[in-house]
Amino acid sequence: MKTVREGKAQILVPELREIVSSDMPVFYNPKMRVNRDLAVLGLAYLCSKLGRELMVADPLSASGIRSIRFLKETDCVGKVFANDINEEATRIMKENFRLNEIPADRYEIHREDANFFLRKSWGFGFDYVDLDPFGTPVPFVESVALSMKRGGILSLTATDTAPLSGTYPKTCLRRYGAKPLRNEFKHEVGIRILIKKVIELSAQHDIAMVPIFAYSHLHYFKLFFVKDRGAKLTNSLMEQMGYVLYCFNCMNREAVFDVLKIKEFCPVCGTRFSVGGPMWLGKLWDEEFTDFLFREAQEREEVSKETKRITSLIKEESGLQTVGFYMVSKLSEKVGIPQQPPIRKVVDFFEGVRTHFEGDGFRTKLSHRDVLEKSCELKGIIERRFKGGVR
Amino acid sequence: MKTVREGKAQILVPELREIVSSDMPVFYNPKMRVNRDLAVLGLAYLCSKLGRELMVADPLSASGIRSIRFLKETDCVGKVFANDINEEATRIMKENFRLNEIPADRYEIHREDANFFLRKSWGFGFDYVDLDPFGTPVPFVESVALSMKRGGILSLTATDTAPLSGTYPKTCLRRYGAKPLRNEFKHEVGIRILIKKVIELSAQHDIAMVPIFAYSHLHYFKLFFVKDRGAKLTNSLMEQMGYVLYCFNCMNREAVFDVLKIKEFCPVCGTRFSVGGPMWLGKLWDEEFTDFLFREAQEREEVSKETKRITSLIKEESGLQTVGFYMVSKLSEKVGIPQQPPIRKVVDFFEGVRTHFEGDGFRTKLSHRDVLEKSCELKGIIERRFKGGVR
Repeated sequence: MKTVREGKAQILVPELREIVSSDMPVFYNPKMRVNRDLAVLGLAYLCSKLGRELMVADPLSASGIRSIRFLKETDCVGKVFANDINEEATRIMKENFRLNEIPADRYEIHREDANFFLRKSWGFGFDYVDLDPFGTPVPFVESVALSMKRGGILSLTATDTAPLSGTYPKTCLRRYGAKPLRNEFKHEVGIRILIKKVIELSAQHDIAMVPIFAYSHLHYFKLFFVKDRGAKLTNSLMEQMGYVLYCFNCMNREAVFDVLKIKEFCPVCGTRFSVGGPMWLGKLWDEEFTDFLFREAQEREEVSKETKRITSLIKEESGLQTVGFYMVSKLSEKVGIPQQPPIRKVVDFFEGVRTHFEGDGFRTKLSHRDVLEKSCELKGIIERRFKGGVR
Repeated sequence: MKTVREGKAQILVPELREIVSSDMPVFYNPKMRVNRDLAVLGLAYLCSKLGRELMVADPLSASGIRSIRFLKETDCVGKVFANDINEEATRIMKENFRLNEIPADRYEIHREDANFFLRKSWGFGFDYVDLDPFGTPVPFVESVALSMKRGGILSLTATDTAPLSGTYPKTCLRRYGAKPLRNEFKHEVGIRILIKKVIELSAQHDIAMVPIFAYSHLHYFKLFFVKDRGAKLTNSLMEQMGYVLYCFNCMNREAVFDVLKIKEFCPVCGTRFSVGGPMWLGKLWDEEFTDFLFREAQEREEVSKETKRITSLIKEESGLQTVGFYMVSKLSEKVGIPQQPPIRKVVDFFEGVRTHFEGDGFRTKLSHRDVLEKSCELKGIIERRFKGGVR
């Protein structure tokens, strides 16, 4: 065993050769640091919002690191319910709670199938649930939604980004009932498909899971949802589903809510469209929540630099919530810009914002025709400068 | 309490004023006789197919009538697992098993939430599951699919026909993630949407639920599925989803698998299409299964007349599996036929088959243009006869 520090917690982690059970594929993954930082910040938001003691669930807890960070880094947790089906995990978890000197009345450790744990005793009782499964969260979503209080927040991780982003489209179709798009904003499409599924599975029970934050990383997607109830609000979510038409020739993209409005051919270049969806076409970020995460991240010492960077970038991005974005490299390739201009200049040129999804990605309000036209303009400017430099 | 006979079973049923718990909305519904007849016949098919002792589950058992009929009217049931969360139900159920002299080793009675019952101890173990919930089956579908053996059959009832058939389209969208169509074949659309949902919820787990029989009644839909496993087969089911475009002016209908092929306007009359779906566009009936139900129903004394009639009609219908059908009354109204001709004549005239969905409904291979043209022809014939009769 070795001791690892993260945030204000320290935990015992078995070294790889000590792990006796294959049920623990990744017991503690240091690459998930940003993910856990965000989970703590999301809980801090709920604390500030509700101003009372909260019931928190960590149904796939593994080392217990999240639960311990929740208790040590926020001031409103009444009790944390940490669960893992693996016996070794619950044993180490117990040690970790003791190591961090958490009082016994502040946590409960359970060893059950996560769905049973969620549905059994705490129906409609959790204020905050952090769900971080190995792979897809789909098998747990309904149980989570049912286990939560109205106004509660779900902090959700998905590591099956490959199917969602178009590497395995058939798996995506089976698991999510939607077609992905393997284009420059494939990760955004993946996140929108995941949101659709979460909303859909909850809507079956007249539960409205309202997406309030999305973050894409190479290996995982991180989402936050607020739980609400009632037919009307749930309808309004279901009505924000639709398809994205994408032209792999000229990069034109159109979001279509009404399937009758779907066109077969790109009106800009005449190529046959490709289609992704159905997916969530609504907002990815609630401005208030996003702003809180940004401010709180900057203020906290225990939060990683990467988390500070990401929340700042996403705060900018949340100011212009388009469906899809552009990548400077792809545009440059398309119109033949000889040298890729820096992203900040491009963002200003297109009156847009940066996106955290891709290093050289940006969002703009401009129509696709205008983007193509301005790209050619940009090409002219750069070519003149380039020639000037050579002379 | 009163005693009721149905099939080869007799059961005790509390009279309405005796029912102490509101958890038992309809304890024994005599209107569901056909439904239970079909459930017995479906099990008889599986008996003949597998030729071994079967494990049968009745997760929402109420009076136990189904379980008892399964045991008395088929010869392959190893054991029936009857479950109901209601204490009064399990108590009466016990009496009913005793009343019918079922040996104690042939049944188990459980009192649990149906989802817990299905997932808990018998994972992947049931050969035959009969699911007859109050309202929608959606909350139980995944648990059922997970609880079944490969090659097993699910006998499924849904009583929420109103949302599925377009009376409450928003409820349909929330619960099933699809838009219904309130046209002449709205019940068929409802059944196809229900099938989509069952396939979709199972596909999440790489389980293929293959629809093999559909029956629509005013108050409920009855479906049978065979459970299979594997990505390839599940993909092939997911690929048979699509939309139905319907013209409320000229009754034109088109089934569209590829969303890019969706048209906004009816090519026959130019009116804006309405759209239903996504839904299952594949076959509703497996011919072998349908034929077995028909033959078996005719041979069995204990099967009701209505079941004999329905299975005969559906056997005919299964010979021409179109998406959507026509109603003679609607066509007559449209083209102005003065007197509605008898359905049998119409079926011959359009080279079609009857449908059990509507008394005056029929399916035909003809294109919509041909149907309209032949309807005018039919009008001419009838008008000439009509005038002849008046003279």
